[in-house]
Amino acid sequence: MDKVTQQQIEDGLAQPATRRSFLGKSALLGLTGAGVSFGLAACKENGGAAAPAASASAKAAGGELGHEVQPGQLDDYYHFSSGGHSGEARILGLPSGRTLRRIPVFNIDPMVGWGITNESKAIMGTKADGSLKYTTGDTHHVHGSYKDGIYDGRWLFINDKMHGRLARIRMDTMECDKIIELPNIQGFHGIFPDKCDPVDPKINYTTRVFCGAEFHIPLPNDGRDLGDPSKWGCLFTCVDAASMEVRWQVRVDGNMDLVATSYDGKLAASNQYNVENGADLASMMSAERDACVFFDVARIEALVKAGKFTTIGGSKVPVVDGRKAANPDAKTAVTCYVPVGKNPHGVNASPDGKYFVCSGKLSPTATVIELALVQKWFAGELKDARDAVVAEPEIGLGPLHTAFDGKGNAYTTLFLDSQIVKWNVDKAIAHFKGDKTAKVVMDRIDVHYQPGHGYSSMGETKEADGKYYNSGNKFSKDRFLPVGPLHSETEQLINISGEKMKLISDHTAYPEPHDGIMVRRDLVKTRQIYHMDDFANAVKTPADSRVERKGNKVSIFLMSQAPNYSMPIIKVKKGDEVTLTLTNHDKVEDLTHGCAIPTHNVNFIVNPQETKSVTFKTDKPGAYWIYCTHFCHALHLEMRSRLLVEG
Amino acid sequence: MDKVTQQQIEDGLAQPATRRSFLGKSALLGLTGAGVSFGLAACKENGGAAAPAASASAKAAGGELGHEVQPGQLDDYYHFSSGGHSGEARILGLPSGRTLRRIPVFNIDPMVGWGITNESKAIMGTKADGSLKYTTGDTHHVHGSYKDGIYDGRWLFINDKMHGRLARIRMDTMECDKIIELPNIQGFHGIFPDKCDPVDPKINYTTRVFCGAEFHIPLPNDGRDLGDPSKWGCLFTCVDAASMEVRWQVRVDGNMDLVATSYDGKLAASNQYNVENGADLASMMSAERDACVFFDVARIEALVKAGKFTTIGGSKVPVVDGRKAANPDAKTAVTCYVPVGKNPHGVNASPDGKYFVCSGKLSPTATVIELALVQKWFAGELKDARDAVVAEPEIGLGPLHTAFDGKGNAYTTLFLDSQIVKWNVDKAIAHFKGDKTAKVVMDRIDVHYQPGHGYSSMGETKEADGKYYNSGNKFSKDRFLPVGPLHSETEQLINISGEKMKLISDHTAYPEPHDGIMVRRDLVKTRQIYHMDDFANAVKTPADSRVERKGNKVSIFLMSQAPNYSMPIIKVKKGDEVTLTLTNHDKVEDLTHGCAIPTHNVNFIVNPQETKSVTFKTDKPGAYWIYCTHFCHALHLEMRSRLLVEG
Repeated sequence: MDKVTQQQIEDGLAQPATRRSFLGKSALLGLTGAGVSFGLAACKENGGAAAPAASASAKAAGGELGHEVQPGQLDDYYHFSSGGHSGEARILGLPSGRTLRRIPVFNIDPMVGWGITNESKAIMGTKADGSLKYTTGDTHHVHGSYKDGIYDGRWLFINDKMHGRLARIRMDTMECDKIIELPNIQGFHGIFPDKCDPVDPKINYTTRVFCGAEFHIPLPNDGRDLGDPSKWGCLFTCVDAASMEVRWQVRVDGNMDLVATSYDGKLAASNQYNVENGADLASMMSAERDACVFFDVARIEALVKAGKFTTIGGSKVPVVDGRKAANPDAKTAVTCYVPVGKNPHGVNASPDGKYFVCSGKLSPTATVIELALVQKWFAGELKDARDAVVAEPEIGLGPLHTAFDGKGNAYTTLFLDSQIVKWNVDKAIAHFKGDKTAKVVMDRIDVHYQPGHGYSSMGETKEADGKYYNSGNKFSKDRFLPVGPLHSETEQLINISGEKMKLISDHTAYPEPHDGIMVRRDLVKTRQIYHMDDFANAVKTPADSRVERKGNKVSIFLMSQAPNYSMPIIKVKKGDEVTLTLTNHDKVEDLTHGCAIPTHNVNFIVNPQETKSVTFKTDKPGAYWIYCTHFCHALHLEMRSRLLVEG
Repeated sequence: MDKVTQQQIEDGLAQPATRRSFLGKSALLGLTGAGVSFGLAACKENGGAAAPAASASAKAAGGELGHEVQPGQLDDYYHFSSGGHSGEARILGLPSGRTLRRIPVFNIDPMVGWGITNESKAIMGTKADGSLKYTTGDTHHVHGSYKDGIYDGRWLFINDKMHGRLARIRMDTMECDKIIELPNIQGFHGIFPDKCDPVDPKINYTTRVFCGAEFHIPLPNDGRDLGDPSKWGCLFTCVDAASMEVRWQVRVDGNMDLVATSYDGKLAASNQYNVENGADLASMMSAERDACVFFDVARIEALVKAGKFTTIGGSKVPVVDGRKAANPDAKTAVTCYVPVGKNPHGVNASPDGKYFVCSGKLSPTATVIELALVQKWFAGELKDARDAVVAEPEIGLGPLHTAFDGKGNAYTTLFLDSQIVKWNVDKAIAHFKGDKTAKVVMDRIDVHYQPGHGYSSMGETKEADGKYYNSGNKFSKDRFLPVGPLHSETEQLINISGEKMKLISDHTAYPEPHDGIMVRRDLVKTRQIYHMDDFANAVKTPADSRVERKGNKVSIFLMSQAPNYSMPIIKVKKGDEVTLTLTNHDKVEDLTHGCAIPTHNVNFIVNPQETKSVTFKTDKPGAYWIYCTHFCHALHLEMRSRLLVEG
């Protein structure tokens, strides 16, 4: 481990922040909107992407990339971000940095009713008594599904490290539609969708999601081997993207952190920071090098097909043994362990499809691994897996994650140096081969402070465009107005279109986004209203709006249309179990209604043409005003129904 | 607390903290010693506000007010905002529009552990089984406590309309410290702190919080009178700001919506949109005018003191009768009903202390009520309460809320017109008196779309500064990149420093901020780290770090210091009820740790020097890695302890 001194840090390059000047034109723009017609008329049967008021392309005076998106203009990129232990995903617009939407996933969100409606509870998972199994989660990485090497706008996948779950978000409505719990793992951290089938190149889109597990646990984790961590293990998991069922798992030596996948679908990999299988900090750092473990997807699936697997505990998921001892022959091995710098904290695929880069974290290096050489190793034609390493430049202290600009340059976050370092991959390879004149490091820029993930516009696709880079900094310190002991994090947007990096703006982020992706806006096609027919329980006509009783189970079928619910008075009895189903009949884009029931802990919203339901007990006689919580109309305050609970 | 004031910054007295000293202290702490060492390395005894890197004052090219806050600069204003049915409060920086912090109040926030820690659950309220009573809430209005007519930076108060609760947020740590449920009311919407005692002018600070209830309910609401809404009623509630206990309530005719208070402490008022006591939309709109009801605070408290009150149901809170029939003589009346335009949706106090303005909503007018004339009515010297109205200008369609610039101008949101209208109060009064040449409306500006609340910088204080105005728009429609059927809301920042209003920028807001306040940054003094002694259960020394068992109740006393917890292995048994108490020994500002326990639905954070606790059941034997969820150190990923649950 490298010793870092205060002097070394103070000697580091300090580059003054640069940014474009303010244009002062904003006041003149955006004044064209007329009043929106209000009432019950349908403005838009099917939204799709709303027609933008103006093209975006934030440009500063000199035509330089800026972050300013003037009123009435749209952002150029969607930024999909994890929300850490907030349990949610987030959508921002870039370059403005505006948060466009929170997507509740593993958390309860009373605004939309996530974790409250019956539909969301079914997705989140419940205990026998109907209460939620978990109300917490820890999202780290969000990645989009691919087609032909770029995002297809179909799904986002996001992990929960806390409870070992994988969630899927459908990108047409930007809502979570599936959550699964992975068996026999703990500390599920890294995640990446595949980009192609390893065997059939015609399947050039995402069909698998790979999941890396960080924590060693007893297998199965049922109370055995608690005193002997040497018997514990970690599994790499493959989930079917469409069915969200676990296809298979591979047991590895060491642990896994992040995941990357090759563009040809043949390889997946995970960096490993604890090849020692250590159970405490000291033993996790005893080895000289850690590794990046590669998986030969086709071979694994062939073994599964051939029945050459075991299962663990009550799980029926096929588990293939990927440990070194079980894979002595490279020509049949399912895994290849490429040694890299100590405690790497990231593995990233270059947009040209040739390399994976692992960062050193405790080593001041990035390790460049050539995929063709890994394939050669799997073919038995490369003796030592370490020979797949084609470069290992010294780039600075605490390197964590690497992004790419599509022009041959890499951008790595330096956690300890609080910098982003720009370096050239070809130059690094030349230098590694012996050309000591090759200038590897191109530029450095200070960020504020301690960056974790960094990522570039379209940088994880074949169409990396080299425009913007986001540095996700873990500490904001004095960067924003003080708001007490809990600090915001700093997201810094950097213009990487030129030779030198230029800091554009500081955004705030509620803790704690780890990773994110920047997606060109034309790749995202959303629905702007729902289809009523998509909901089997839709309350479609006034005749359907009614109260039904079976014993003490009462069903309320309600409709909303601004500024009214379809029934002004609803009578139930104390002790009833009430299921209220609400269909929003408004068709105007953005005309969402809320539905709150005082003292009954119920709130949810219904977007245009959407149906949702809630179930609750009525244990207190009295009058309770069901009211609209989502501003809908000039008479929004007056939009209420009386729920009369008779004693 | 060494808080840096705006003046100090502008005077250049505050020295920027050295960036490199941050890096050295936070990043390197503990890095060199890989073992579990617990030597305290205090970097900063007392945080206070970190010295800002530069003065803010966002200015456009021509010296005009802009929204651009350059990297490293600070905002000029805190913007405290409600979060609607998200259940939270929010802090933004203005003019940048950056969200600096979410403050969970009525919602569960797994990021901080709100609703998860024992301490937060005690504030939120639990059922007999220890689970939370409510996990939803609907925050509308957030207002700060006052001293001498401006914010004193002590407390924020925020309502929950859904379950009739009032919460208090302490502004030194920006955390909720108290939540109470108001008795015998429903639809608690409006809220305002008083600014002075009505009797003792030396008490020139907030000691009361007034709460308006919107929904008529049976009194008590125990199942009686369900079929006869004419017997239902609404109560105005006064809460003691310091003890957060309900002092008294007043029953009124009609309902109440928002609340305003006079600078001299003598009057509080609430606009009424349903003087008809109607129970459905048609009957709520049958009268020709609605009203603004004024409360004579001193008289009410004299009656309470004299025992002239009743109580309702099981509540012991004194209830004074403020209905017209009980108050025939103005000279002894506790309430004065001033007729105003139909279905008003707001009442706001002018910074000069002279007027309250009610908006018409269904009437295109704003009604200006002179407080001196209301006092005259209470003195029996004004025959008709309507004569307290000194102006009623026609300003546009759907007027909702009015803000002020301290220069005699008012800014009213026009919901239906989707505009902000600027009008002059004195000119409106002159026009009302008969001067038809008086030009009342000064300017109009389109906003996007349908504004609800609008508020100006320091506009609800004596030091309204006429710089910025925020229009909180309820619909964004096509204003931002499409993100599915659920839309963000649009917050638009307007420069009101000149004759004409100028739109500066569009921000997004997760639904649904209703109201907010803009507070000059020098008025907010936060603590940047906690004091360990503030927590009675702090785990202060390595010797205190231990596991204690009493039967199946196990107490774990743990400490955190990057990158370690104080115990690497913690053993418990299946079936235990475990209480884990964690004290963060890091003293570096912003060095927060998380604490997650896989499959046990536990996550919370501890900020520097803070202590929190959680209680959970261990019902599954196995190994569970307690891990740090809040990025803290280069070895953050490695910061874990093993919780071994023996079968």
